Amino acid sequence: MRTVNVGIIGLGTVGGGVARLILSHHDDYVASYGIDLAIVRACALEPEAARACGIADEAFTTDWHDVVCDPSVDVVVELIGGEHPATEIYEAAFAAGKHVVTANKALLGRHVEQFASKARENGVQLKCEASCGGGIPIVSTLERDLVGNKILTIAGILNGTTNYILSRMEAEGADYADVLADAQAKGYAEADPSADVDGFDAASKTAILASIGFGTRVTTDDVFQQGIRTIAAEDIAQARELGYTVKLLGIARNTPAGVDARVHPTLIPIDHQLAKVAGAMNAVYVVGDAVGETMFYGAGAGSFPTASAVVGDILTLADPISKGAEPLPEPEPFKQNLPVRPMDELETKYYVRLKVADRVGALAEVVGVFAKNDISISLINQVEDAASDGDACSVIFLTHKAVEKNMQAAAAELAGASCVSEVANVLRIEDVSAWTEGVFEN
Amino acid sequence: MRTVNVGIIGLGTVGGGVARLILSHHDDYVASYGIDLAIVRACALEPEAARACGIADEAFTTDWHDVVCDPSVDVVVELIGGEHPATEIYEAAFAAGKHVVTANKALLGRHVEQFASKARENGVQLKCEASCGGGIPIVSTLERDLVGNKILTIAGILNGTTNYILSRMEAEGADYADVLADAQAKGYAEADPSADVDGFDAASKTAILASIGFGTRVTTDDVFQQGIRTIAAEDIAQARELGYTVKLLGIARNTPAGVDARVHPTLIPIDHQLAKVAGAMNAVYVVGDAVGETMFYGAGAGSFPTASAVVGDILTLADPISKGAEPLPEPEPFKQNLPVRPMDELETKYYVRLKVADRVGALAEVVGVFAKNDISISLINQVEDAASDGDACSVIFLTHKAVEKNMQAAAAELAGASCVSEVANVLRIEDVSAWTEGVFEN
Repeated sequence: MRTVNVGIIGLGTVGGGVARLILSHHDDYVASYGIDLAIVRACALEPEAARACGIADEAFTTDWHDVVCDPSVDVVVELIGGEHPATEIYEAAFAAGKHVVTANKALLGRHVEQFASKARENGVQLKCEASCGGGIPIVSTLERDLVGNKILTIAGILNGTTNYILSRMEAEGADYADVLADAQAKGYAEADPSADVDGFDAASKTAILASIGFGTRVTTDDVFQQGIRTIAAEDIAQARELGYTVKLLGIARNTPAGVDARVHPTLIPIDHQLAKVAGAMNAVYVVGDAVGETMFYGAGAGSFPTASAVVGDILTLADPISKGAEPLPEPEPFKQNLPVRPMDELETKYYVRLKVADRVGALAEVVGVFAKNDISISLINQVEDAASDGDACSVIFLTHKAVEKNMQAAAAELAGASCVSEVANVLRIEDVSAWTEGVFEN
Repeated sequence: MRTVNVGIIGLGTVGGGVARLILSHHDDYVASYGIDLAIVRACALEPEAARACGIADEAFTTDWHDVVCDPSVDVVVELIGGEHPATEIYEAAFAAGKHVVTANKALLGRHVEQFASKARENGVQLKCEASCGGGIPIVSTLERDLVGNKILTIAGILNGTTNYILSRMEAEGADYADVLADAQAKGYAEADPSADVDGFDAASKTAILASIGFGTRVTTDDVFQQGIRTIAAEDIAQARELGYTVKLLGIARNTPAGVDARVHPTLIPIDHQLAKVAGAMNAVYVVGDAVGETMFYGAGAGSFPTASAVVGDILTLADPISKGAEPLPEPEPFKQNLPVRPMDELETKYYVRLKVADRVGALAEVVGVFAKNDISISLINQVEDAASDGDACSVIFLTHKAVEKNMQAAAAELAGASCVSEVANVLRIEDVSAWTEGVFEN
């Protein structure tokens, strides 16, 4: 058994958890797995960050080059996030023949193919379990356990902040702004919540999971993004009455027409397994043609849950190294070359909430706009609520399946029509039965 | 890339699914993973079984020795179940330097340590993802993804037949015997349902998962078993009113007092994630000290879901082989040597349903028996139902935490007491908050 040397760059929430986990469990890893991990280098801004984790002063540096250039380091762990210097760290580490473990979803969402190829060229691995779903083993599940399947659908609650906000809005009947403010006060949401509430974080993860699951390159830019800022207590209450709950889902489908990848608030049936995932927890629903429906549930963030994923990756690499072997190099990435289906072509049912003018004929005009855009209505419900006033009232429209492009055209037309004072929300109702199209019958 | 040769023994429900999956996805595995799988040997009783899967006649044999002794075979897949000749197949395969993939939970529940050691001595691997939870990746999750953690609790709905029966009893208010008969007619339950309804199947899986998760040897014989035959519609309805649902759980806890391993009908809060797993689906709840609470959900049985797990194992072995490397040998198994805590020492709350004599003083006598055995009662509820007659009435007792040994003594005493005409059920109410004892705070 030889010691496996780890260099950590970044000792914040996740990096600090990784260091603490490795140091506290060192003897267990030796006893149970014959793996002796040593943190030989640790890079942070202040030495106190390293000392607080129990890292020896000799290992501390403020310069990431010291980690990557140390010839004794086997595995470089990047936990600083962001594009730079993470990009330079990966390139230097690969060039030096070192494996990289990271949780950097924003960077991998955009550039995973480039880095995986570089790793492969240099005979090393890039591992990123912690980039999606925090502590939930989902990257490795797609990379290894479910490889016997053609993966048909990946649909996840991939952002804990937004699930926390939506869960509290539903439980308390509270408004978005109030819950967000409270979540910020409690540290569950950032002062600038945009990456979470506008869907960018979930889109990065959706891109990574779709790329791995479908074996084709999907980048964050390919993923349609719509956040939760417009969701009102009224929408959640209305959805509930109709048998739905509202979740911010990252959905990726491997359809005959191409890969469909999108993040948006989604109405799903209240009895669906994903509908039952509350609070800050994450869950990823995966449908394979052989395995059928599966779901993987756990904490999507937090110091130790994320550290669990990072250390799992480190130990997976360390297992052969400690036995004198070398991990296989990164496999050739994403060999399928599937087209990404434009969002405009999505066909789904919609939930539309409008403020409609309170005059004879207004509703007929609205329905006319829908009809003109080839959208057929299945339900109209005028809501008696505080939002209704003398001049306009809230009306909910549910549609049959319609084409996204047509819905956007109708929404634009309605926004300019005198019969409508506001297009308050256009939300998609997911046809979850379509997720299992293509599953083998037993 | 070299072809990886697979020999399959057993072409029944699972084996047939494995053959079909490999043959239908062959080109995808080549294109996506650079793995060329060939089924070069297939053993079954009748050649039609092989032909029906599309296996070439030349590969067919009725003698398993032909599979194991074929020098071209890299991986032997045993899918016949039972103790013999599975035992002889493993021994011959390991001696011949071949890896083994199996779904044989009954055999591994009793003997996994012996076979893992044999595999290790011969420098090969024994893989058994399909032995627990069907298509759910749970063995590999414990063996690899969560190894950074000390695993604290594993609690699973590990048997689809019993979950199907209990779910229907709850949904329909139906009785056990009626639902079982219907399940048998529909092929969801065996003609002899004992392995399922008496908990043996779940106990085998609990033993395997506890062994892997805790890194210590737990055999099926270490797992307390109580099945669902005594559960009445009345119990489920009463539990529901008290805020619980009844699930047959396999529970393994890694406690300071030793490993606690048991299968029994369990009352869990209706809002717990496991309570929401309905029908024939399986789910495994895993708590690690770093990752916290996780759950893995999917089909626990069926031809293609189970084949997904088997083929995942085959491809994991085939990946290095196809690249000219060899998989690492089986790791040294179960190095922790934790004691198994006797069931007698379990401390839990109980739900007890008695038929109590309808006379003054009878209830006082019952409570006296509980008190004498150091069992404190938190709720007594006389049930107005069909089971009540002139001589006796159903009474539900909930207890505070009590010791199993004391409860068994009290139940025996009550069964012989004149104040009680029947001890209809003694069920355990799980303290799910204890499952997370030892999780790190973030």
